[in-house]
Amino acid sequence: MTTTKSSPPKAGLEGVVAASSTICHIDGTKGVLAYCGYDIHELAQHATFEEVCFLLWHRRLPTRGELGDLQSQLAAARLLPDGIIRLMRSLPVDMRTDAMGGLRTLVSALSHFDEEAEDNSLESRYRQAVRLTARMGSVVATYGRLSTGANMVEPDPVIGHAANFLLMLNGTRPSAAEARALDVALILHADHELNASTFAGRVTAATLSDLYSSVVAGVGALKGSLHGGANAAVMQMLLGIGEAADDQRVDQLIRDKLKRKEKVPGFGHRVYRTEDPRATHLRRMSKEIGERTGNNRWFEISQRIEAVMKTEKQLDANVDFYSASTYYLLGIPIALFTPLFAVSRVSGWTAHVLEQYSNNRLIRPRAEYIGPEYPQAYVQLDRR
Amino acid sequence: MTTTKSSPPKAGLEGVVAASSTICHIDGTKGVLAYCGYDIHELAQHATFEEVCFLLWHRRLPTRGELGDLQSQLAAARLLPDGIIRLMRSLPVDMRTDAMGGLRTLVSALSHFDEEAEDNSLESRYRQAVRLTARMGSVVATYGRLSTGANMVEPDPVIGHAANFLLMLNGTRPSAAEARALDVALILHADHELNASTFAGRVTAATLSDLYSSVVAGVGALKGSLHGGANAAVMQMLLGIGEAADDQRVDQLIRDKLKRKEKVPGFGHRVYRTEDPRATHLRRMSKEIGERTGNNRWFEISQRIEAVMKTEKQLDANVDFYSASTYYLLGIPIALFTPLFAVSRVSGWTAHVLEQYSNNRLIRPRAEYIGPEYPQAYVQLDRR
Repeated sequence: MTTTKSSPPKAGLEGVVAASSTICHIDGTKGVLAYCGYDIHELAQHATFEEVCFLLWHRRLPTRGELGDLQSQLAAARLLPDGIIRLMRSLPVDMRTDAMGGLRTLVSALSHFDEEAEDNSLESRYRQAVRLTARMGSVVATYGRLSTGANMVEPDPVIGHAANFLLMLNGTRPSAAEARALDVALILHADHELNASTFAGRVTAATLSDLYSSVVAGVGALKGSLHGGANAAVMQMLLGIGEAADDQRVDQLIRDKLKRKEKVPGFGHRVYRTEDPRATHLRRMSKEIGERTGNNRWFEISQRIEAVMKTEKQLDANVDFYSASTYYLLGIPIALFTPLFAVSRVSGWTAHVLEQYSNNRLIRPRAEYIGPEYPQAYVQLDRR
Repeated sequence: MTTTKSSPPKAGLEGVVAASSTICHIDGTKGVLAYCGYDIHELAQHATFEEVCFLLWHRRLPTRGELGDLQSQLAAARLLPDGIIRLMRSLPVDMRTDAMGGLRTLVSALSHFDEEAEDNSLESRYRQAVRLTARMGSVVATYGRLSTGANMVEPDPVIGHAANFLLMLNGTRPSAAEARALDVALILHADHELNASTFAGRVTAATLSDLYSSVVAGVGALKGSLHGGANAAVMQMLLGIGEAADDQRVDQLIRDKLKRKEKVPGFGHRVYRTEDPRATHLRRMSKEIGERTGNNRWFEISQRIEAVMKTEKQLDANVDFYSASTYYLLGIPIALFTPLFAVSRVSGWTAHVLEQYSNNRLIRPRAEYIGPEYPQAYVQLDRR
């Protein structure tokens, strides 16, 4: 074995600054997350997902007129091409186990129904970003609905993105409180600097590949259990514990898990050294929806788990932990938890990809070679 | 504008060592490329693509028995699932302009027809890598053939991967010389350390997403004009110059292009500071096939361009430059040049992805925030 470079590898690129960006500011020590200067707490309290989309794409909040225009553009793009519906119906995907694989194929196929997909002007790519953000919601809601054997529901152009998602998924108009809960969840998940899926998208865009290829890379990366896949894993864990478990039983089950060195999903984060500011809001929402629906056991169990993890491992809840019970109480099938992450994060992916195009440099690191020594003598097959 | 981190960003991660790897050794100064210790010149002279696949996946050359087993496994996986053929026929993709977009969708969809796609054991993932490598060839050849309105050609399990690709594409068995030319081209393109598409695949795999998602990210990144897209651009440039152009005209056209600050595809490389060792073989092959087919004008024009680029810009030809005329003379449609790159590189992508799984760490760099100053005061919509 031989080594050809002296610099040690940056495992996982931890702490490596890979780009300058005007989109997202995270202070992991202080627990600060801000989109284009606006603190996530302010946005979660006051803004809508559509406003946040505008903010991420333009680096400033929209005027009333600009927001109206964007809402119209998003609403106009909600209707899915017939070819995509046919594809959904024909692909042999088990939505219960591989919804993200199906979503990856469908998002890739959406490009074939976008006449501008190969137009690489920034103006066209912005329009593609708007369309794809609208359609990500429609695809996930429709796919979720068709997978249960239910009929498709047409989008309603006069309601917001979050409310329309719930309508297309459930077939009934959500209450204002339900729509707002999802709206806030979408805001909280919209961007997170160079997280793995966004970075995969930027690496793809940096070859000057198209917007759809970049977002498809994001969907594929988000699928992983160390990324978006964690929120579904949290809910599976909660269901495994069961509503009937008392507090002592919950504590014991988590302690046993830790003793067996099993990972407890929804805790710890590469960047935050204190509470993930998104967890603060999702905890509150999980509690509120629990109270409203008269089922606060999932929230209480979550709180017990959080306390054990803090005591035993000094780990804080991340964005995935309380989003699990929140989504569950909103009636969203577990199989759609990670796809729903994509419904929000597509706004951040596209913002980053557009930023990459506007000041591009191929992203191409090096590896430290530690394989068989060079040069190896080639031995003919019949003498091996 | 405010900056929150002191370390300057590593633009494009140039020179950053992102991983240790036992697969590929490049010395950009000396012009050395080696797979698992074996110099690319040795492999291009003696090995077959199947041997190189084994080498990349196992870090050593196979015995005769092991090679026979791998050849059988690859041959057995060549036949495409009916659902993929139906999908090829139904997707509204213009193969002349977006073959890579179509390939991205089809590779993603292949996962839905692989019963092991969600099995994350290393043994299963190795079997998935073998299957996907076999099928990448079948998909590209069949897709290329169907797009011209021709009938599908069944694979032949008793011939090698390169020969079978040409058979499935052209409908006739290639000569030994043609098959060997493609075999060598596949060997030369099989891996190249942390190139952008391989890196996109590793970033995806590092979230513990599946093998298909990782390869789909690779296909999407390869699509870009700064990566795999360059070989098609070279041939378009050659055709634009035209066979009839004399040497002076060729020189003039390239000098004019440079004066207009237009990019001349097929030159320069992030890593090599001398001739790309792959270009050496592709230049020779372009010349040999030109002589054999009685059409050496594309080779001669290529040589003129190479000389002008050396004089004017001190740039060397890269892997894409002579692969263009080589593929063209092998009768491969230009639209398939970049997909053909994927037919080879899937071996390296999967080797790297398997390596990533075997010693994983989430790949998650940071960004330097240079956007609007934090915190911005949120102003209600009706006061903006």
